Amino acid sequence: MFQQSSGCCDSLFTSPEFGFRPCLAAPKTKNAFSCSMEKHKLFTSSSSSLSVKQQPQTKRNPVLACRASRDPHVITGKDDVAVHGVADVIVGVLGGGQLGRMFCQAASRMAIKVMVLDPQENCPASELAHYHMVGSFDDSATVQEFAKRCGVLTVEIEHVDVETLEKLEQQGVDCQPKASTIRIIQDKYLQKVHFSKHDIPLPEFVQIDDLEGAKRAGDIFGYPLMIKSKRLAYDGRGNAVAKSEDELSSAVTALGGFGRGLYVEKWAPFVKELAVIVARGRDNSIVCYPVVETIHKENICHIVKAPANMSWKIRKLATDIASRAVSSLEGAGVFAVELFLTKDDQILLNEVAPRPHNSGHHTIESCYTSQYEQHLRAVVGLPLGDPSMKTPAAIMYNLLGEDEGEPGFLLAQQLIGRALRTPGATVHWYDKPEMRKQRKMGHITIVGPSLGNVEKLLESMLNEERLDGQSAVTPRVGIVMGSDSDLPVMKDAAKILNIFGVPNEVRIVSAHRTPELMYSYALSARERGIQVIIAGAGGMVAALTPLPVIGVPVRASTLDGIDSLLSIVQMPRGVPVATVAVNNATNAGLLAVRILGVCDADLVSRMSQYQEDTRDEVLTKAEKLQKDGWESYLNP
Amino acid sequence: MFQQSSGCCDSLFTSPEFGFRPCLAAPKTKNAFSCSMEKHKLFTSSSSSLSVKQQPQTKRNPVLACRASRDPHVITGKDDVAVHGVADVIVGVLGGGQLGRMFCQAASRMAIKVMVLDPQENCPASELAHYHMVGSFDDSATVQEFAKRCGVLTVEIEHVDVETLEKLEQQGVDCQPKASTIRIIQDKYLQKVHFSKHDIPLPEFVQIDDLEGAKRAGDIFGYPLMIKSKRLAYDGRGNAVAKSEDELSSAVTALGGFGRGLYVEKWAPFVKELAVIVARGRDNSIVCYPVVETIHKENICHIVKAPANMSWKIRKLATDIASRAVSSLEGAGVFAVELFLTKDDQILLNEVAPRPHNSGHHTIESCYTSQYEQHLRAVVGLPLGDPSMKTPAAIMYNLLGEDEGEPGFLLAQQLIGRALRTPGATVHWYDKPEMRKQRKMGHITIVGPSLGNVEKLLESMLNEERLDGQSAVTPRVGIVMGSDSDLPVMKDAAKILNIFGVPNEVRIVSAHRTPELMYSYALSARERGIQVIIAGAGGMVAALTPLPVIGVPVRASTLDGIDSLLSIVQMPRGVPVATVAVNNATNAGLLAVRILGVCDADLVSRMSQYQEDTRDEVLTKAEKLQKDGWESYLNP
Repeated sequence: MFQQSSGCCDSLFTSPEFGFRPCLAAPKTKNAFSCSMEKHKLFTSSSSSLSVKQQPQTKRNPVLACRASRDPHVITGKDDVAVHGVADVIVGVLGGGQLGRMFCQAASRMAIKVMVLDPQENCPASELAHYHMVGSFDDSATVQEFAKRCGVLTVEIEHVDVETLEKLEQQGVDCQPKASTIRIIQDKYLQKVHFSKHDIPLPEFVQIDDLEGAKRAGDIFGYPLMIKSKRLAYDGRGNAVAKSEDELSSAVTALGGFGRGLYVEKWAPFVKELAVIVARGRDNSIVCYPVVETIHKENICHIVKAPANMSWKIRKLATDIASRAVSSLEGAGVFAVELFLTKDDQILLNEVAPRPHNSGHHTIESCYTSQYEQHLRAVVGLPLGDPSMKTPAAIMYNLLGEDEGEPGFLLAQQLIGRALRTPGATVHWYDKPEMRKQRKMGHITIVGPSLGNVEKLLESMLNEERLDGQSAVTPRVGIVMGSDSDLPVMKDAAKILNIFGVPNEVRIVSAHRTPELMYSYALSARERGIQVIIAGAGGMVAALTPLPVIGVPVRASTLDGIDSLLSIVQMPRGVPVATVAVNNATNAGLLAVRILGVCDADLVSRMSQYQEDTRDEVLTKAEKLQKDGWESYLNP
Repeated sequence: MFQQSSGCCDSLFTSPEFGFRPCLAAPKTKNAFSCSMEKHKLFTSSSSSLSVKQQPQTKRNPVLACRASRDPHVITGKDDVAVHGVADVIVGVLGGGQLGRMFCQAASRMAIKVMVLDPQENCPASELAHYHMVGSFDDSATVQEFAKRCGVLTVEIEHVDVETLEKLEQQGVDCQPKASTIRIIQDKYLQKVHFSKHDIPLPEFVQIDDLEGAKRAGDIFGYPLMIKSKRLAYDGRGNAVAKSEDELSSAVTALGGFGRGLYVEKWAPFVKELAVIVARGRDNSIVCYPVVETIHKENICHIVKAPANMSWKIRKLATDIASRAVSSLEGAGVFAVELFLTKDDQILLNEVAPRPHNSGHHTIESCYTSQYEQHLRAVVGLPLGDPSMKTPAAIMYNLLGEDEGEPGFLLAQQLIGRALRTPGATVHWYDKPEMRKQRKMGHITIVGPSLGNVEKLLESMLNEERLDGQSAVTPRVGIVMGSDSDLPVMKDAAKILNIFGVPNEVRIVSAHRTPELMYSYALSARERGIQVIIAGAGGMVAALTPLPVIGVPVRASTLDGIDSLLSIVQMPRGVPVATVAVNNATNAGLLAVRILGVCDADLVSRMSQYQEDTRDEVLTKAEKLQKDGWESYLNP
């Protein structure tokens, strides 16, 4: 499972607890102390550049330096020491922003120690890390110093000094993902060249070195033309749009000139932006998270919807492309693959981040394994966890600064107050001391039984509506009938659902008389949060929605209902309608409750109780009959 | 929302940052600095009893001492400073064990600072707390010192020095829950007296002061007789059972003699042990978590199943009793109410803990608001969050030490390895440096679509079975038929389910020929993880299970299938069967997929795709017909 690099030093290691201990450089070695006395001294000195956050490292593992991670699942022999807990390796992260913070939060569940390197003293991860080294991840000497203290090195920001990483790797430092990956990613042009070599579909692109080149590109790709800087771009910086040839010059200037390294992309007329988090283990195994839809505002991530509302085919395509993209890179960890969905259902790669990502925050509440836990598992060498969603839907809202300083904090405080009152919402605050407009200060994730449901909750949260229970509750069952003459029958379904506490709506929607209304009702039901439809007929509705549809044959005046029954139940192969007895809307309601019970243990319990109560009623009657006799029973 | 106690001091507060600032003792005051210079000095001195863990407290809030929490939702005026984030108050916790650790984990999401007081230097919460004061929560002076530094004081262990808490409360310290509650809880006899005064059903109990009293109790209550010590009992310590009058003496001796303070309880012949976590806000609002079943081994919590597998009526009764019990206590926070379910369906209170509890760990992964986040919301004064489950089921397994020292760690490591490979499992490790037999070292929670499913996963995890995908996957749909002559028809359901990737089983189960088998199949289906049943008939099955049942009328040889159809669809009110067209097992399979889609956005997406593909097939045929003409179409 692990590739153990050869040792960087053969010196003996001294520590107060262990005395002299040789450098054990064999593969899969459990205890690999490899620091010379000098390095050891450096570590324990109270140098001003080290803000020692905790008591000195635990006695068991004074320093794990310059060694690949130990395999925590190798059953040790008698003489060896077992891993205490999940893993003993110390994970080092370059960068201590909110991604590092959430990574530390995930690691703390499994009590895996994480150290961060970040120049900001009170960076978001500082308080949560086992150890925060204050220093720049762009400074070679500092990064080398940092790397000595951890068993595996990873990043939460890709804009690190990659030459240093490459040097460290040659010395045996375990970087995940590999420095080669960081190098490719850092330069967005190189990134595209790389992926295009690996047959990943991308918008067309070309390097531009001067204005003539830019104009030629404009002629070929057309306008608007997307101009990008190759390096150091995030959250929209490093992009400029030229709407015509006249705007080329100013766009280039806005990006700092050709000297910065620029390229252009053909405008991708996308209808949606998507993202797929892909995790890759040390053994090269790959797991993919559900495709999500990302909505940006002024180039910054604004809202994320999970799973993305699109056809299975397109989701599969997006997942495949993301998986292939990540497979072409080296090293373990999670990767965020951002994609465009074009007007003609094409998926094009936008870019890849070699780390957890804003589009994956929702996974903390919505998936079996959060992207942070997954990244930890991947780099440490633990088996990858299940990336599926454990709640049907999730929506994440970025808490961006809406103003500077105190006014910004006040606005955030008010929104947080609303979030705390929103059912299913979790508030994340990154504890950044400085409030700036558009700064990522935190995020709010709402999970729930359907995308329609969580979208509605988010909407309520963001607007000044009253957040009372009723207004936020979307109907889960839609009861529709072709005519009000069916209402005396169909009302029984609503009655039952009310008894079971299931929010429902009752509508007149006729396939024959109001076809467009029926069409739009059926097509929009799922988005609105409807989970089951009960229909006076049902066939047309069932054809237009993937939701379960229950059909209630209603006895018309002329025939005995058999006509209605047959027309509903005898649906052709491919379009099922769950048909109940003639006029038995009560059973339709009960069936709807049973169906919702698939996701709601509370309803299953209530259904069991209902069955028990029904049984008790019958038993009571049976006893009475037995006691009173049939004559008295019939003539009380 | 808050009760602001009157100030404990009127002195001016000096700090390097703020200069002199008066003690602002008005209700709902935003900034209430109330420490005298002397107290302030004590805090910042590098006293040896204070292991200052972090940089000094943030500049904004040097000390919030002896003040009730500020209401973070009061919109401040121009001069006042907004709350930065969720809440500025520092929460102090007496005790730093795993409960404190998980409390800190919850607090870190919202960036709320938590300090802990614990005598153990490397207690589980130490690394995660904002500040860990090393000291005994049983020592009056230490607790007082600690209380000065936090805005609200709470506990993670009820065995604290309650006299000190009462004194602190009188001085204006904000204790949640109130000291009066801790006093009642600490003494299990007083606890029972209190609850019995509030009409909470309990096993009968009586104090015993000498052997004669014990014998009298034995005569009245019968044997076995449960003898308990009034105070300082947890994880089974403080209980002794006398199986007969002869054993009374030795049981009393085992508990330390009558001088310790003993009482006896009538033996409660329980069939299940239950627990309900109840949260109470500062405004006295109450929310209850789902009832869970707790399984103990040697008096220590072993496994917790959520939600408890029992009728709605009993769950409601348990919840009501728990709610009433907590309502009778004072103060905010979460409370764990442990209950017995007796043979005759009675619910009796066992005991209450005024804090988060082992029975509530599962809530971290399974509920919208974990018990820890809820406790935080409650004591700080934030609105209580939604306590419902967001996954249908959860099971928690306590990681208890199975041996001392290294051998114990090795066994734990092996189990953790299996847990990391179990889908839907999350590993929690409390980072206790010392391994002891039966010690709570961590826990594992598995969440999933049904209790049957998670129980099976836990079973696989604990046994030496291979953890491959297949063996752990329980069938979600059961396809049953009365005779193998139905198989050629019913197989279509299995085919469709296989296409959609839904694990299913096919069985011969006849209501008429093998009634007991049908009975046991229907009754056990849900526990086994089946979520939908497709039956060749269906009525009997639907009567015996709360699951949705789909009926497929199979055409018998003599009639045309209408007989079968009517006998299935025309179910009496109360027992719904979702009937599909005659012989149309394909539609039954599709309906089952739609039903499972209620909890599985992936399946809904696949269903939509299926509908689209079907439509495309038809469109292709339509085009062909249009192109070729009907004659050529019929004679190709």
